[in-house]
Amino acid sequence: MRIARFNLDNEVRFGVVEDSTVKLIAGHPFDGISFTGQEVSLSSLKLLAPVAPSKIICIGMNYAAHAAEISQDVPDEPLMFFKGLNALTDPDAVVELPWQSNQVEIEVELAVVIGKKAKNISVEQVDEHVLGYTIGNDITARDLQFTDLQWARSKGFDTFCPLGPWIETDFDPTQQHIGSKINGEQRQNSMTSEMIFDAKTLVSYVSQNVTLFPGDVILTGSPAGISRIDHGDSIECEIEGIGVLRSTVA
Amino acid sequence: MRIARFNLDNEVRFGVVEDSTVKLIAGHPFDGISFTGQEVSLSSLKLLAPVAPSKIICIGMNYAAHAAEISQDVPDEPLMFFKGLNALTDPDAVVELPWQSNQVEIEVELAVVIGKKAKNISVEQVDEHVLGYTIGNDITARDLQFTDLQWARSKGFDTFCPLGPWIETDFDPTQQHIGSKINGEQRQNSMTSEMIFDAKTLVSYVSQNVTLFPGDVILTGSPAGISRIDHGDSIECEIEGIGVLRSTVA
Repeated sequence: MRIARFNLDNEVRFGVVEDSTVKLIAGHPFDGISFTGQEVSLSSLKLLAPVAPSKIICIGMNYAAHAAEISQDVPDEPLMFFKGLNALTDPDAVVELPWQSNQVEIEVELAVVIGKKAKNISVEQVDEHVLGYTIGNDITARDLQFTDLQWARSKGFDTFCPLGPWIETDFDPTQQHIGSKINGEQRQNSMTSEMIFDAKTLVSYVSQNVTLFPGDVILTGSPAGISRIDHGDSIECEIEGIGVLRSTVA
Repeated sequence: MRIARFNLDNEVRFGVVEDSTVKLIAGHPFDGISFTGQEVSLSSLKLLAPVAPSKIICIGMNYAAHAAEISQDVPDEPLMFFKGLNALTDPDAVVELPWQSNQVEIEVELAVVIGKKAKNISVEQVDEHVLGYTIGNDITARDLQFTDLQWARSKGFDTFCPLGPWIETDFDPTQQHIGSKINGEQRQNSMTSEMIFDAKTLVSYVSQNVTLFPGDVILTGSPAGISRIDHGDSIECEIEGIGVLRSTVA
């Protein structure tokens, strides 16, 4: 099931995407799906980021080839950091390049969307606490990442977290193709099986450290092939079984 | 004016504290103060963290004596990081010690509460974008701060950000006493004038990097004298002109 979020008649609504049709649901999807009976065409909607999280948690250096290409060690346990909500950006929206950086790069990442409050859960309990999976782009000012002691700024500028296009609830995170393109040219090209810590291990780990609330998002790290973006570029982040998250650089 | 936040009849409300009386206001204080005429006694209320932010931004190493005591360099420009909202804790509430750490320490900090959306504002524009000031405690698992590359975990555990007791709107942040006590014994003891980057410079700087929304909180760094807490300790964080933020360790 693909759950999308959008504005309809000046209200934020959720719906289930089936081919070119969106079936509206009542309220939000965290307490179960209840269809209203109303349908709209997907092409008539401007999709929003598929969730409004209370926090966005990211995992760094979770693919060995990516850690190597930016000269970082692979960590012994998952490396957590936060992105601010100011960074959250809708599908098919514009990414801004901040004047502070000369080297802004994309990072396609598998994003886990929490469905139920989770604190100290085991790996076996993860599935019942996850609503589904979507695609995130952990955009990074690479030059500032190396000069700043903490990554809050380099990864936290406005528009630096495109998310979407929807939440896929029927998804096996262990073995899917993950990649990105700039102006149609393949840049990142990997498999989620290349993660050092797999998605469910990460959700359990994060829940030991911070309480997760419905809608919270965990970005699970970027594969190798990071690539600089420039004004006017078109970005595609793709994960097999979910879809394509598109952005344009202002 | 002191603006507090609390539950009343199962609703989250704001009010203005005058001695032992709280005068209720309509809605929230970001669009101006409109009194309802209703009054309640302060002692009858259980205060909440005085604001529900969309993000908590912290500044590290902003007092030279504190940077020195934990063997860190003073940064050339403000050092930003985020705390997750799971860390936010009410006044007079309980702080939990996570099993992952053997060395949890308190850090009293002057906290700025944003009143109006702020992006790329100058120092001269800060006053019109700030609602007021409160007290924050940037609780830190010091051992994990040194072993983790990023501080999201060491500073982001549940209950690691007590905030309050209220927002003082008539406050000069440049020259006030700031200190903390554990079990009545003075630990931190400094002046806000010892900040490397003053509060208004920080608000302007942060607004260049992330858009600030009404209610967002900036913690402006901790003076020297950080001190370990243990089960059962009582904590007092005090800033002259604002008041005392009290917590108890579980």
